[in-house]
Amino acid sequence: MTTDGSTTDDRSTEDVTLDRGVLEEWVSRLVETWGYGGDEAAYLAATLVDANLRGVDSHGVIRLPAYERRISERLVDPAAAPIVTVEGSVVTVDANGAAGQIATRAAVEAALRVSRETGVATAAVRGSTHFGAAGFYARWLAEQGAVALVVSNSEPIVVPHGGREALLGTNPIAFAAPTGGKPISLDMATSTSAMGKVLVAQAAGKPIPPTWGVDDDGEPTTDANAVTALLPAGGPKGYGLGFLVEILGGVLTGAAVARDLGNMYNDFSKPQNIGHWLLVLDIEHFLPLAEFTDRIQGLVDLAHAVAPAAGFSSVLVPGEPEDRTAEQRERDGIPLPAATVAELRELGDRHGLSFPIGDDA
Amino acid sequence: MTTDGSTTDDRSTEDVTLDRGVLEEWVSRLVETWGYGGDEAAYLAATLVDANLRGVDSHGVIRLPAYERRISERLVDPAAAPIVTVEGSVVTVDANGAAGQIATRAAVEAALRVSRETGVATAAVRGSTHFGAAGFYARWLAEQGAVALVVSNSEPIVVPHGGREALLGTNPIAFAAPTGGKPISLDMATSTSAMGKVLVAQAAGKPIPPTWGVDDDGEPTTDANAVTALLPAGGPKGYGLGFLVEILGGVLTGAAVARDLGNMYNDFSKPQNIGHWLLVLDIEHFLPLAEFTDRIQGLVDLAHAVAPAAGFSSVLVPGEPEDRTAEQRERDGIPLPAATVAELRELGDRHGLSFPIGDDA
Repeated sequence: MTTDGSTTDDRSTEDVTLDRGVLEEWVSRLVETWGYGGDEAAYLAATLVDANLRGVDSHGVIRLPAYERRISERLVDPAAAPIVTVEGSVVTVDANGAAGQIATRAAVEAALRVSRETGVATAAVRGSTHFGAAGFYARWLAEQGAVALVVSNSEPIVVPHGGREALLGTNPIAFAAPTGGKPISLDMATSTSAMGKVLVAQAAGKPIPPTWGVDDDGEPTTDANAVTALLPAGGPKGYGLGFLVEILGGVLTGAAVARDLGNMYNDFSKPQNIGHWLLVLDIEHFLPLAEFTDRIQGLVDLAHAVAPAAGFSSVLVPGEPEDRTAEQRERDGIPLPAATVAELRELGDRHGLSFPIGDDA
Repeated sequence: MTTDGSTTDDRSTEDVTLDRGVLEEWVSRLVETWGYGGDEAAYLAATLVDANLRGVDSHGVIRLPAYERRISERLVDPAAAPIVTVEGSVVTVDANGAAGQIATRAAVEAALRVSRETGVATAAVRGSTHFGAAGFYARWLAEQGAVALVVSNSEPIVVPHGGREALLGTNPIAFAAPTGGKPISLDMATSTSAMGKVLVAQAAGKPIPPTWGVDDDGEPTTDANAVTALLPAGGPKGYGLGFLVEILGGVLTGAAVARDLGNMYNDFSKPQNIGHWLLVLDIEHFLPLAEFTDRIQGLVDLAHAVAPAAGFSSVLVPGEPEDRTAEQRERDGIPLPAATVAELRELGDRHGLSFPIGDDA
């Protein structure tokens, strides 16, 4: 639609709001130009745009330039097929050069199938990369009638409790379970904050809470520019949970552990070799699914009936804030900041794919 | 050893330090007088005294008077045998009137057996009671060469994020995994603090951090006397994890959920009907155990090598602070405050069992 360069330049300085379907279709076509088949391309696009839809923009299309770079460096192979092995109730996936999303799709599909036979299945994925938001896979499993846990290790950026140097990544924990309505879901870093939020404060010249990060001396700081590493959420609790994720996602899967992980953005000497671990519980092996959803809906209703504290209009259940954002963005479109639009437009232009024209935000 | 009442009265006003083995033997003999067989009595004693040994005194012998009261009210039956069912990789345990420890022992033993066949097993326990510290079972499983997760729901005392009334319990999460040395282990409440710590501050007339609890209006308070409920650790994160525990421990197991749980200390109208959920991963189904322990030991060594932050002498791994306390108390004895000693002495006297004489602290 853009007819000349100057228009492109003008538009690239503006925030844009895009229809969810339009953005997803564009991402799918973009990654097809990298060598992904149509099915894999659509899945990759769905995982990323779902994060944007839910307001988790740090795990959405903003990652596309880094994904492309790692493919062009031959560290990720769009044509690779993950290798899946099943023994008992254990699924093992060697990503075999495939992207995290593609390897994890193989893992969740196999684990779901096994869980329906034996009641519980676990999958260990090694040799993987960034897989988007962990919650995507947990919610998909919940929509199939399972209770799911998904964790992943990631590049070191979080200090251990009492330490001044990064040891573990933000090591997320996601879970989801079906209810009478949308699944209950949680997707949390085991650090207090994400580095993305620190960067936003840096750009805005604003102070940060002292619980987010430490300076070079390992001292909590409110100066966003002084942050060298993040703090674990709740001190020893977040550290302990991050350690659990590193054991499950890194040690047990056979993936890289802690400082052996390849950094997505600045290490092109080796594959990331991230590890993911997930658990699928087939509810029918515990109690009838209808009884489970009745019982969990009762808990949800009880939570909604709790009188809100000052400053809150209501009590929500885990995942509900993101569900609300998703409803709003499905209706009104997904807002993309000018910097992201400029990056995506440039990425598309290099592959002969013009970026869609959205509504100016 | 006590020869007259006046001596007993004098001693009961003093703190006492007891040898771990002496205390464990006494607890075992005490609960035998309630009707437990020798084997069950020894197990109950081991779970409680292990908590004291590790410095988790809130989950140790201080619980004995409440346990006895619930047995005398016929809400717990020392002669009951849990009913264990195995289907696929899922173990289901109906406590059937037995205490939490006895029901959970049946669950971990069955799940360990199943995990060795299928690689992963889960156990759901319903109709249970307070089971001591969740970490006891996770560490036992790790000592058998497994990675283990153990959670339990509990009586409501924690507000949901943004709420002013308690909805969930402190809902602990425990995990453990074998290393080259002692298991890595975590045992954490999903609330910032335990009510026990608030009571200690009340007794001492000291303020508490504003992250611990809320007053009647749901406002964070530093006044220990104003606390009506606890806050989840890290706001939405602890709330989300507490919700996960309620789903696994309560909803999925078929136990009571949230406000339907019977309170251990002040509700003698019904059994507690607590639910526990646990997961056992057989490491050999993922990679050779020796390779796992090598890899995890590498991570432990890496953590120990992190430069400590100001105010810390070293970086420890999860469970290490409690392991150190256990070593010290195994050597020097377990300190019991005068109030606990008085309660235990009275409990023993009623069953014709005099309390051991320890070293005055």
